Amino acid sequence: MSTLRSWFSIPRDSHFSLANIPFGIISTAASPTPRVAVAIGDHAVDLDAFTANNGFQALSIIQPHQTVFSQPSLNAFAALGRPMHTVVRKYIQSVFSADTPYPDVLKNNASLQAQVLVPLEHVTSHLPFKIGDYTDFYAGLHHAYNCGVMFRGSSGAIQPNYKYLPVGYHGRASSIVVSGTPIRRPNGQVLLDPSAEKKIPTFSPCRMLDMELELGAFICKANTQGEPVAIGEAPDSLFGVVLMNDWSARDVQAWEYVPLGPFNSKNFGTTISPWVVLADALEPFKTQGLENDTEILPYLQEKDNKSVYDIQLQVDLKTQSGNTATITKTSARHLLWSFPQMIAHHTITGCNLQSGDLLGSGTISGSTTAQSEMGSLLEQSAGGKKTVKIAGGEERRFLEDGDEVTISGVCGGDEGMLVGFGTCVGKIEPALTLSF
Amino acid sequence: MSTLRSWFSIPRDSHFSLANIPFGIISTAASPTPRVAVAIGDHAVDLDAFTANNGFQALSIIQPHQTVFSQPSLNAFAALGRPMHTVVRKYIQSVFSADTPYPDVLKNNASLQAQVLVPLEHVTSHLPFKIGDYTDFYAGLHHAYNCGVMFRGSSGAIQPNYKYLPVGYHGRASSIVVSGTPIRRPNGQVLLDPSAEKKIPTFSPCRMLDMELELGAFICKANTQGEPVAIGEAPDSLFGVVLMNDWSARDVQAWEYVPLGPFNSKNFGTTISPWVVLADALEPFKTQGLENDTEILPYLQEKDNKSVYDIQLQVDLKTQSGNTATITKTSARHLLWSFPQMIAHHTITGCNLQSGDLLGSGTISGSTTAQSEMGSLLEQSAGGKKTVKIAGGEERRFLEDGDEVTISGVCGGDEGMLVGFGTCVGKIEPALTLSF
Repeated sequence: MSTLRSWFSIPRDSHFSLANIPFGIISTAASPTPRVAVAIGDHAVDLDAFTANNGFQALSIIQPHQTVFSQPSLNAFAALGRPMHTVVRKYIQSVFSADTPYPDVLKNNASLQAQVLVPLEHVTSHLPFKIGDYTDFYAGLHHAYNCGVMFRGSSGAIQPNYKYLPVGYHGRASSIVVSGTPIRRPNGQVLLDPSAEKKIPTFSPCRMLDMELELGAFICKANTQGEPVAIGEAPDSLFGVVLMNDWSARDVQAWEYVPLGPFNSKNFGTTISPWVVLADALEPFKTQGLENDTEILPYLQEKDNKSVYDIQLQVDLKTQSGNTATITKTSARHLLWSFPQMIAHHTITGCNLQSGDLLGSGTISGSTTAQSEMGSLLEQSAGGKKTVKIAGGEERRFLEDGDEVTISGVCGGDEGMLVGFGTCVGKIEPALTLSF
Repeated sequence: MSTLRSWFSIPRDSHFSLANIPFGIISTAASPTPRVAVAIGDHAVDLDAFTANNGFQALSIIQPHQTVFSQPSLNAFAALGRPMHTVVRKYIQSVFSADTPYPDVLKNNASLQAQVLVPLEHVTSHLPFKIGDYTDFYAGLHHAYNCGVMFRGSSGAIQPNYKYLPVGYHGRASSIVVSGTPIRRPNGQVLLDPSAEKKIPTFSPCRMLDMELELGAFICKANTQGEPVAIGEAPDSLFGVVLMNDWSARDVQAWEYVPLGPFNSKNFGTTISPWVVLADALEPFKTQGLENDTEILPYLQEKDNKSVYDIQLQVDLKTQSGNTATITKTSARHLLWSFPQMIAHHTITGCNLQSGDLLGSGTISGSTTAQSEMGSLLEQSAGGKKTVKIAGGEERRFLEDGDEVTISGVCGGDEGMLVGFGTCVGKIEPALTLSF
């Protein structure tokens, strides 16, 4: 595709090729007010500055809405709807393409280039959305099975409802942070001896701190309360996708979660990657999800059976002493339910979604029993019974203080055409010592 | 208390006596922009207009912050902190008191009275806060026991964790609505025969639609992520309290809730009363909650054992044909955990609360097995097995289309000194007929 060659220097292995154009919120030392940008190669393109300098002169349709690029979140841009995201992304691609029809906008305008192209190393990324509600699903069938076996044995591992509906729960929106934000180990109630007959909890720093490999999807289109989003229209509600680490305190979770689900075990922090890859950019990487051997109800039936994404996912762990290991490699195709199905289910009651709401996919684990395909340490360590090897003789059952977890994800294999997410990074800080 | 006599006509049986001064968000036909008000007797006091006319002239401490009263939510006013709420409430009480030291502000100023005093019947009430996150607890021990018996029998009714921590879960913030907003019966997946061996769900309008009698507490003080709120400081985070109806689709809930808790069964709507009664106004009505026979961990131990509120609660049901019944009478004292304990638990992991977050108490039922003390129809009908008598020969197991549920609540018995919440009303609309 010749339009995807650029006059601008984009490293061949960049996640942010011209085929991508992910959106985020940046600030810089020189201009500390958060604002909208896209990432291209090793640079952010400051769309606030671009707009102020008439960069969208050839795209009249966006002009009445240009204040969206000065906002400190993507909520307003997202709310313009997918057709607008499509034309804005295409326009930016065309401005950067080698044979751009608009050479005077940026290609031949060194002064504007100097103003709007900021090396990513000089950029501070912020949370891309002001997140109203966050819902976490559980669509990773292999993860659900692996965890179910641990808690209920293999025959009862998958609950009767699991293949009929995308199981999900409301999560905590306020503690979602952008990649790079440290995560403090939580304190809480844990059972030191879960097998003891008398259950008496102890107050303790979490001893079973875990990561969870997930995707997050941002909603762009609000639906009115009382009016469901039909499955066929659900893709219109989908702005884009990020990588997500749903940090989990497994010992807190085991004690607290009956009967109303996870609460404190998940509410201390969730990390997302800063650049939101638009649904449009992911379109070429749609694929079939896991086969569902159950006859699902019509409101969840998609016309298109290619509805999840083939994103190559990887988790790396670096310890305080600098030893590293790639602990997980899998694909985002290992989901039983797609984001459109989650949207249709979420709203079938009339629940209203809003621009900036976040949906988590659930933890993604591969189809084999290989430790290296599992998306959480709970699974990799079989509930703490086995170890995961790191370099330098180190090993892990769960996360230790100083551990840094990096999730990365990328679609496609053609250099110069990669559609990637960059990284989603979080480092564990020691728990607070509290006195009462 | 002579300061609580007013020069202004306040009905003796009003919930909004001078001892109360609840805050809300109003608009009127003449002035449709939502803004802050307080309720006194049968009137709202428009604090935006009051401010614009120099009504706070004698309260210099609020003057730098007066724009909070022009906001469409209480978030900014709440974020000023409890000491500021205290002085503003006291000032308004003094302006309205019979022997006001500021007679020229309002008492002798007919022109300002005409501007700021709006009969409540001319007022449209709005959601008082822009709610970031909503957490629903489960602190009504009798309700938890009654439900537990139904699902697990009496010996396993109360889970081992229940008396050690305030069990809670994240709820859906976007679908919280103000009193008077109709509630549409949700559609969803239900098991028509839950006892069948093979569990195959049917798509159906909810057949077991229920109300839940709860209190809601609004947070005023944000804590930094990673930094818990100590139990002794938790009352400083508490702005005030509303009545809450946590509508619940019991058949949807029974099928979906394993293993991650209620989701679609609760996400279609939650109704709150419009006037937020400040924590200060409720202070005289603090009382001991239910005794906890368990040794709780220090981070949940309150110095003051009077930490729940003695609010007389009542639920009335009016059918489409106009028949009515008072179906519940109980007190908000029937809670095992107080709001400060919920705050301390919620944040012990470092979870950050924000101004405008809402905490639900959990359903409140009385201590006896009397149907008329139970805070949900699930309990009153013993899971649909018994009926609840309404007038005119009508009866209910669960809510029918056209049913209107009204929760009311009031503290104190002295006429002219009542501290009440007004009402929290919702009427059931028929489910949408969907075709696929």
